[in-house]
Amino acid sequence: METLEKIAKLIRYYILISTTEAGSGHPTSSLSAVELMAALLFNGVFRFDVDRPDHPNNDRLIFSKGHASPLFYALWAAAGKVTEQELKTMRKFGSPLEGHPRPVFRYAEAATGSLGQGLSIGLGMAINAKYVDRLPYRTYVLLGDSEMAEGSQWEALQLASHYRLDNLVGVLDVNRLGQRGETMMGHRLDEYERRISAFGWESVVINGHSFPEIRSAYEKRLRTEGKPLMIIAKTIKGKGVSFLEDQEGWHGKPLKKDELQRALQELGEIDTTVRGKIDKPESKIPEVKKPQPAKEMVYPKDQSIATRRAYGNALTRLFPAFPEMVVLDGEVSNSTYSEIFQKAYPERFFEMFIAEQNMVGVALGLSRRGKIPFLSTFAAFLTRAYDQIRMSQYSEANIKFNGSHAGVSIGEDGPSQMGLEDIAMFRALLGSVVLYPCDPVSTEKLVEEAARHQGIVYIRTTRKETPVIYSPDETFPIGGCKVLRKSEKDRVTVVAAGITLHEALKAYEELQKEGIPIRVIDLYSVKPIDSAALVEAGKVTRSIVTVEDHFAEGGLGEAVKSALAMHSIPIHTLAVRKIPKSGKPDELLDHQEISKKAILKKVKELL
Amino acid sequence: METLEKIAKLIRYYILISTTEAGSGHPTSSLSAVELMAALLFNGVFRFDVDRPDHPNNDRLIFSKGHASPLFYALWAAAGKVTEQELKTMRKFGSPLEGHPRPVFRYAEAATGSLGQGLSIGLGMAINAKYVDRLPYRTYVLLGDSEMAEGSQWEALQLASHYRLDNLVGVLDVNRLGQRGETMMGHRLDEYERRISAFGWESVVINGHSFPEIRSAYEKRLRTEGKPLMIIAKTIKGKGVSFLEDQEGWHGKPLKKDELQRALQELGEIDTTVRGKIDKPESKIPEVKKPQPAKEMVYPKDQSIATRRAYGNALTRLFPAFPEMVVLDGEVSNSTYSEIFQKAYPERFFEMFIAEQNMVGVALGLSRRGKIPFLSTFAAFLTRAYDQIRMSQYSEANIKFNGSHAGVSIGEDGPSQMGLEDIAMFRALLGSVVLYPCDPVSTEKLVEEAARHQGIVYIRTTRKETPVIYSPDETFPIGGCKVLRKSEKDRVTVVAAGITLHEALKAYEELQKEGIPIRVIDLYSVKPIDSAALVEAGKVTRSIVTVEDHFAEGGLGEAVKSALAMHSIPIHTLAVRKIPKSGKPDELLDHQEISKKAILKKVKELL
Repeated sequence: METLEKIAKLIRYYILISTTEAGSGHPTSSLSAVELMAALLFNGVFRFDVDRPDHPNNDRLIFSKGHASPLFYALWAAAGKVTEQELKTMRKFGSPLEGHPRPVFRYAEAATGSLGQGLSIGLGMAINAKYVDRLPYRTYVLLGDSEMAEGSQWEALQLASHYRLDNLVGVLDVNRLGQRGETMMGHRLDEYERRISAFGWESVVINGHSFPEIRSAYEKRLRTEGKPLMIIAKTIKGKGVSFLEDQEGWHGKPLKKDELQRALQELGEIDTTVRGKIDKPESKIPEVKKPQPAKEMVYPKDQSIATRRAYGNALTRLFPAFPEMVVLDGEVSNSTYSEIFQKAYPERFFEMFIAEQNMVGVALGLSRRGKIPFLSTFAAFLTRAYDQIRMSQYSEANIKFNGSHAGVSIGEDGPSQMGLEDIAMFRALLGSVVLYPCDPVSTEKLVEEAARHQGIVYIRTTRKETPVIYSPDETFPIGGCKVLRKSEKDRVTVVAAGITLHEALKAYEELQKEGIPIRVIDLYSVKPIDSAALVEAGKVTRSIVTVEDHFAEGGLGEAVKSALAMHSIPIHTLAVRKIPKSGKPDELLDHQEISKKAILKKVKELL
Repeated sequence: METLEKIAKLIRYYILISTTEAGSGHPTSSLSAVELMAALLFNGVFRFDVDRPDHPNNDRLIFSKGHASPLFYALWAAAGKVTEQELKTMRKFGSPLEGHPRPVFRYAEAATGSLGQGLSIGLGMAINAKYVDRLPYRTYVLLGDSEMAEGSQWEALQLASHYRLDNLVGVLDVNRLGQRGETMMGHRLDEYERRISAFGWESVVINGHSFPEIRSAYEKRLRTEGKPLMIIAKTIKGKGVSFLEDQEGWHGKPLKKDELQRALQELGEIDTTVRGKIDKPESKIPEVKKPQPAKEMVYPKDQSIATRRAYGNALTRLFPAFPEMVVLDGEVSNSTYSEIFQKAYPERFFEMFIAEQNMVGVALGLSRRGKIPFLSTFAAFLTRAYDQIRMSQYSEANIKFNGSHAGVSIGEDGPSQMGLEDIAMFRALLGSVVLYPCDPVSTEKLVEEAARHQGIVYIRTTRKETPVIYSPDETFPIGGCKVLRKSEKDRVTVVAAGITLHEALKAYEELQKEGIPIRVIDLYSVKPIDSAALVEAGKVTRSIVTVEDHFAEGGLGEAVKSALAMHSIPIHTLAVRKIPKSGKPDELLDHQEISKKAILKKVKELL
């Protein structure tokens, strides 16, 4: 206990000096959770091999309140893995100790800092331990009280109890104060407890600065079978420095030099030599499953099959070849056709219900534990999780997103169900891959490419059936395209993908009859994009028409414009430009002027 | 009671025939809520002038479970405002009776269909009634059980009790079945009640097919002061048709012709002449506040002031001129500076806490009741609400979004707090306006333009202070730009906005010394875009460099490419292309090659 007190003091010292040195950061939000975290790591609860952060049996610790990063770094300094010198690089250019934790710091499990995301990530790791890899590790998530206002927290809470994740522990640091004043519930801990226990969690309310109370709370996790545990801790923001304690106006403010001196005086003597010991995890590691060859696919050329169905087929066919695959769906598996996989491999499918934010967080958690998560819902509903998707790019995520029911071609259900911003949304991410197959064969091939690729991949699928146009021996490398119709005399290049590719092919047939040759390109890889092929086509035909079932901004048309921005080739974009409505798919394609008819009209204008 | 039974039967008839005629739609999800809604509208609870849907005192009814639209339309048919003939146009091209409700149907308060949004919208309307317009109307929201999995619901629930909205009534139709099977909680109504009451709501559990129980539940709303009321109703999906009742596999499926015949036989005789009567609301309407002239702004040219601060100043200054203005913020008002408005007009400011999805829903509800909501948070965190933002375009929303802390130039806090996808996100919306001021004067002018414009406007502001470069007599029309530096000999045009505009001006000064004239354009209106000015500049200088503190896709660069796609002018885009990190703003601008230095380098390459 005495050592713990010494370590807590050392951590407070580190928090204060590192933020003052940085000139920014969140000392007060860090100080409130010092005892909670010190007791977790350095009192025999947490099991972690500090020299092997990648050990599969390591317990996991996620700072959902990412702005408490000074505490996070101080913990690892107290564990002897970060020097005081390194702490003083915090928030400086090039330092792995960034303003909010990211995996560039080797002990950070994921990037946090956009609030309300850590619990979902932890949930994914806990699912991995309990149901996928069946490992003994536990996952701990430090939560702030302000962030409990985010709905995503309640998505995670409900699913954790649904899946009986007794290997997941939340530590809720109720320090009463948010950024600009009191939180919605202040220090009313009973209200947090009522809500959290109503969501099916075991919970315990404690004084978050009392080591004995904290210890007994962590011990509780050993006794609660079948339920996740939330430790709801009453804490003081700024704890340990009298003029910071429970004061408004100190959020995200470091101490000035003279204030720091006063604070350090209050702390008293610091033993900078004391170090916390973290117990090692079980060493036994399960065998890794070896990939087996996937079966061949069979799609006779006279068939019409929706790409969304081919997506489900592909997952099922490819699982033996990618044994790290896990499939998630947001309660629409009979529409996205991930249910085909679910039926074949129920133990690797997890129903996420209608809670897309949490679904993406879970996928990130799985990805950080070495899985290849494929997640699916309607393309439109992925917009729900854009913050989680955006954040995943900072966690080196390896997630495969599938958005079905793309575009107005879904028909009667109307605009609420139409994905029309999804390409823009995914293209904007750094290093993302955006794939848009037009037939079942290319879908299967692109799902395979996605599984093999390390990183964020988006696969856009279509509700309507489309004819098989490719044979199974064709290849579809990421970053490629297919020049499907080509002659030396082509007068216009039409670039399309997915549903509009078939409209382009129909337009080709009609123009062919009229003696007007056009080039048709299947831009199945919207990002990265095959600039060379587009430039070549553009140079021959001198003008390009793009056609997409997506809004005009940020989609396929602008991708082509960016690829050709230096080449002075006129580009005409056919895209969704009117408020979509209900109707038959063909009526809607016509209405938006992205059908065969519109392509014919545009090509003829250009002759 | 007998009439109610007759009306319920008529409504069931309408639901069945209209979906069979459409060949798609959700009859079973509609049938479960027939009694709940018939008893609300036609039994003296609901007050609504059916000939004046715009009456300010009308009670409001929102179908959050938008797929129950066949019921919604049938209700208005039973009220005598839609004919059976019109019902049969449902889901057909051009009919206002779309697959999911939209305000093209005059009785729809907002577009729904992406689940978990209706309660937030209703909350906005209830806030309007209780705190803004002080009107006697009540707001009712029909909720599905599946959609309770969405975190946004719990955001709305917590805020409704926080604001003591006793004029808000939720009707939760617990029919046990989701799209692909049972919901997370099935028919365990006690779990719903435990959770909802823990969130501070009054609640009552009833049999949702018993008119007496429903009636007494609605009467309860008259007795619960200071708390919103949730009616938690146990219902049967497909109720009224034996082979549909409580069966899996019937979600979103209409009856085939022969099945319809069997179903209608079961229903027995239908009185197609019976009509429900809806009571009229109070006729007294409060006076509308008249606009007063706004004060002048004062920004001396030697000052540096962050555009985010000018945003807060502008709201405060302009409120007298736009008395319909309401301001919302997501717990960061001391960073976005909406707190300046809050301090001046606390009664028109509503703290939304860290729950961005609900914040956008509330803004939509306010907008639908004639307010001009300005909402603010960090640009990065608006991604959290992209689904709500996307849906608002289908509700003819008049919402002004402010995203502060845009780009890497925020510095030390790192990528989690950097808005780098926000322009892409807002540009993709139909008819949206995207504004990006670079100094306090243009910010104030653009806030005024935004307030005056009818529709969705996004205003991007910057954390860092930037110098005043405009004088208050300049105008900033939406769709315009400012050519700030210009000569006949310009060799390159640099197009920038916000923070990068100042980098461009610095580059201009240096190049000027070296005798290299460039044109500099402030593209403060990214959408709509001033194509004419860009074409003119491009024709003179023959090449264009765009510079933006945003990812390369979907932002300012691609906006310029789209504007010039037909003009064969080479366009070079400087944008954020590396994983951002912590550091000083200038270091980060340099690192991403969007600073003065990068502009100089690129311009010289092009000479």
